[in-house]
Amino acid sequence: MITAPCVSGSRDVFVQDVRVGDGYFAIIAGPCSVESRAQIMQTAHAVKASGATLLRGGAFKPRTSPYAFQGLGYEGAELLAEAGRATDLPTVSEVMSVEQVERMAACIDVLQIGTRNMQNFDLLRAVGRTGRPVLLKRGMSATIDELLAAAEYIIAEGNQNIILCERGIRTFESATRNTLDLSAIPVLRERTHLPVVVDPSHAVGVRRWIGPLCCAAKAVGAHGIIVEVHPNPSDALSDKEQALTFEDFAQITADLSRIPVMS
Amino acid sequence: MITAPCVSGSRDVFVQDVRVGDGYFAIIAGPCSVESRAQIMQTAHAVKASGATLLRGGAFKPRTSPYAFQGLGYEGAELLAEAGRATDLPTVSEVMSVEQVERMAACIDVLQIGTRNMQNFDLLRAVGRTGRPVLLKRGMSATIDELLAAAEYIIAEGNQNIILCERGIRTFESATRNTLDLSAIPVLRERTHLPVVVDPSHAVGVRRWIGPLCCAAKAVGAHGIIVEVHPNPSDALSDKEQALTFEDFAQITADLSRIPVMS
Amino acid sequence: MITAPCVSGSRDVFVQDVRVGDGYFAIIAGPCSVESRAQIMQTAHAVKASGATLLRGGAFKPRTSPYAFQGLGYEGAELLAEAGRATDLPTVSEVMSVEQVERMAACIDVLQIGTRNMQNFDLLRAVGRTGRPVLLKRGMSATIDELLAAAEYIIAEGNQNIILCERGIRTFESATRNTLDLSAIPVLRERTHLPVVVDPSHAVGVRRWIGPLCCAAKAVGAHGIIVEVHPNPSDALSDKEQALTFEDFAQITADLSRIPVMS
Amino acid sequence: MITAPCVSGSRDVFVQDVRVGDGYFAIIAGPCSVESRAQIMQTAHAVKASGATLLRGGAFKPRTSPYAFQGLGYEGAELLAEAGRATDLPTVSEVMSVEQVERMAACIDVLQIGTRNMQNFDLLRAVGRTGRPVLLKRGMSATIDELLAAAEYIIAEGNQNIILCERGIRTFESATRNTLDLSAIPVLRERTHLPVVVDPSHAVGVRRWIGPLCCAAKAVGAHGIIVEVHPNPSDALSDKEQALTFEDFAQITADLSRIPVMS
Repeated sequence: MITAPCVSGSRDVFVQDVRVGDGYFAIIAGPCSVESRAQIMQTAHAVKASGATLLRGGAFKPRTSPYAFQGLGYEGAELLAEAGRATDLPTVSEVMSVEQVERMAACIDVLQIGTRNMQNFDLLRAVGRTGRPVLLKRGMSATIDELLAAAEYIIAEGNQNIILCERGIRTFESATRNTLDLSAIPVLRERTHLPVVVDPSHAVGVRRWIGPLCCAAKAVGAHGIIVEVHPNPSDALSDKEQALTFEDFAQITADLSRIPVMS
Repeated sequence: MITAPCVSGSRDVFVQDVRVGDGYFAIIAGPCSVESRAQIMQTAHAVKASGATLLRGGAFKPRTSPYAFQGLGYEGAELLAEAGRATDLPTVSEVMSVEQVERMAACIDVLQIGTRNMQNFDLLRAVGRTGRPVLLKRGMSATIDELLAAAEYIIAEGNQNIILCERGIRTFESATRNTLDLSAIPVLRERTHLPVVVDPSHAVGVRRWIGPLCCAAKAVGAHGIIVEVHPNPSDALSDKEQALTFEDFAQITADLSRIPVMS
Repeated sequence: MITAPCVSGSRDVFVQDVRVGDGYFAIIAGPCSVESRAQIMQTAHAVKASGATLLRGGAFKPRTSPYAFQGLGYEGAELLAEAGRATDLPTVSEVMSVEQVERMAACIDVLQIGTRNMQNFDLLRAVGRTGRPVLLKRGMSATIDELLAAAEYIIAEGNQNIILCERGIRTFESATRNTLDLSAIPVLRERTHLPVVVDPSHAVGVRRWIGPLCCAAKAVGAHGIIVEVHPNPSDALSDKEQALTFEDFAQITADLSRIPVMS
Repeated sequence: MITAPCVSGSRDVFVQDVRVGDGYFAIIAGPCSVESRAQIMQTAHAVKASGATLLRGGAFKPRTSPYAFQGLGYEGAELLAEAGRATDLPTVSEVMSVEQVERMAACIDVLQIGTRNMQNFDLLRAVGRTGRPVLLKRGMSATIDELLAAAEYIIAEGNQNIILCERGIRTFESATRNTLDLSAIPVLRERTHLPVVVDPSHAVGVRRWIGPLCCAAKAVGAHGIIVEVHPNPSDALSDKEQALTFEDFAQITADLSRIPVMS
């Protein structure tokens, strides 16, 4: 089912037949963690129905504490792939170590590099060698220049299928989990040909503030958003405060449809 | 010409007959500094023609260095008022000290408190006592809670005509002058009835990144923007890097018209 | 009792006969706020006995909330001056507005500019005109360059009697109230002839971490410290978490005596 | 030559017969990168003569750009080990990926986890399993709590031989490369039994400011420092701006001897 990704002349990344780049707005949605077949299937169908174009789900979870839920591992990845096939949605999932890369690349369409691994250089090289599309999250204290330098590690292996992701930076403000740096979008659009999406869920960390920031991301010229959706957020095994319900997500995609794609 | 401001039942501030609040989007534009009659008149007519709803212009300029241009003072304020009358635009200008408040309130519609004075408590009390609409800028390292506490100093004098302004916070990122904290908008909309506008000019400090952030500000639910416009930015006596040309500004208001007012 | 201050050839500031500069280490201590004659008298005698060289005490208090204790005003300043005379300690107290400057200068030896007023330019000019020694605190998000530019506002009025003060900057770390930037001391020693002292109380905000940072301040080459001491911290009307007891302070000065003056 | 490390009852870590903990002050010195046998041998003898107690040197270098010098790899590690044996100094070197851990542990005494890998959880687990002493650097935007949570990943594998390292955090201040957070030392001493050392070289990034911060680190209660020393800094292949000459280092250890060990 995985087809060879290719890069258009300019800034676009193709994930199967989904185009991420100028003139398009990707909506990447799914649970923080894949928790069960029922959970991911139900979520995949719900987000598809509301307009999602890619399905996300965590199999390996980087957690601040070693005693927190660490994800279902490869079993989670297989469930995600199954849900992706069932809904015809390409899949996005994080790889945390070099040894996971090959096996994850065999079943997942877009390999995500998390914020804590933006400068895990061996991992960057490893995903670079797969040729697979990569969603590269900005480190939570990385400058824009450092994000681009990290992308160079992937490109140096011959892989230009990179989707950058702004997900909030560390600042003194504590009302939100991080500070979403939307100014980075026009800066990145000027400095690179790579598409850039926005993750407001991890930036603000509070469900009801995510929708307005999705709209802002589209208006500022981002090429998409990535958000966390769960059938029942209060039962989520990770990031429950920021998980959207199906209804929240449907409202957000409806709101997004009122904002034109900016270019 | 100055009419008594009043507050509607909920979140709106009236500046003459211009309403700032839910369902409206204020466009506040004008030069960083008033430099001459010709400059402010030309700018006022240009921004009015492109859709500005209020006219801004600095008379007293807080400058990091004592040797930088400090503004035309009361003469600048009078020129701004004249340009406002000529174009039927209410005016916004900064007050920097208690002694300026009364005289500025006599000719200017909205008294602006700059980012460096957000916790200049005597000044907050002084503008509070005027009853005049106040545009209160967030300190560049102030939390959202501290911004609201600063507004309390004005409210404690009986003046609720306050327009809050997010203008970027200090972070490690140096590609932009500051980091515009658009996440603050949904947080503020939840925590206060006061309207909040966004100043992207001082946040990013680079002309060509301002337009996308204006659109983002509207999409995230801000009640307006405030931007710097100059007939010839390269000749501006202050902030020339971030001043918009008349053409830039016309393009931005055209782009803004494509974004609905969110509520 | 106030004698004309003067500046030595190089980096020293004289406050009466107390020298602040290379080869000396000033210990400035006293309550956050002057609360009563008994409180300030008792504190003055206690800190004098433990080695303090200047007496601090707040008369006008800048408070985030308008509903918090705002200080005793001029009455507090007079009590501080009285306690200074009784113990032969020069006094330090904050001025918050231009109108306070002349009257405060008549009874207080060192006029303090607080962190929130570092760029209150009219106030800087006003203390500059007094010729009185000024203790200029770094703004909580001010760069080192901006601190020096603020000092220029005072110097431009002909007053070089400036003691700079590092007091912590805003960062993402929340274990401490602010992050004390001791790296600023060698940078400032290189860039300016002005002496620089360190305020660890406001930086860390927790009593038991202040002592080690006082020692670090001396070791890094600062010209002194300024700390808050109270007869009974749990009863303090402001900043009770960071006020030192008399015993704490005596221990700190004993520890400081084990660190040589670095130059 | 590598002996089994062991932990004393409380906070001490033993590296061979060098004790890191209360009452001791470790001086860890050596080049940023091992560049040649001559360079590391010469440096090892010089730092030993001036009082260093451990020898550091980079074999694998995490670099922001893929096109920068990446270190000599295992050859560099072998050269470092040889220099350590020749001078009877235990060695410290960074591991960047899980696959390097076993081979590095066979020749290096202390495995360093760099700032970019503080939350590379698989790597933390891998060094945990070796039982070898680990020098764990704080992430450049990690809170103190997150640093301790990262240490838990190592401890969870049964390895308590952890030396924490404060190395500067990201802030808005640009005069220094990072902001050294010395307030973290008393906080860490209160919250954990693990020893903590300070790396001022990476924090300030400028040679001549390192000495004062070494003294401050000792005075604030750190259990040691780690600094970069090079025979000829202007020829260094990495971090040349912050490398100390042999003379600089000798002056610093002389200055340090004037500061008592605080506890």
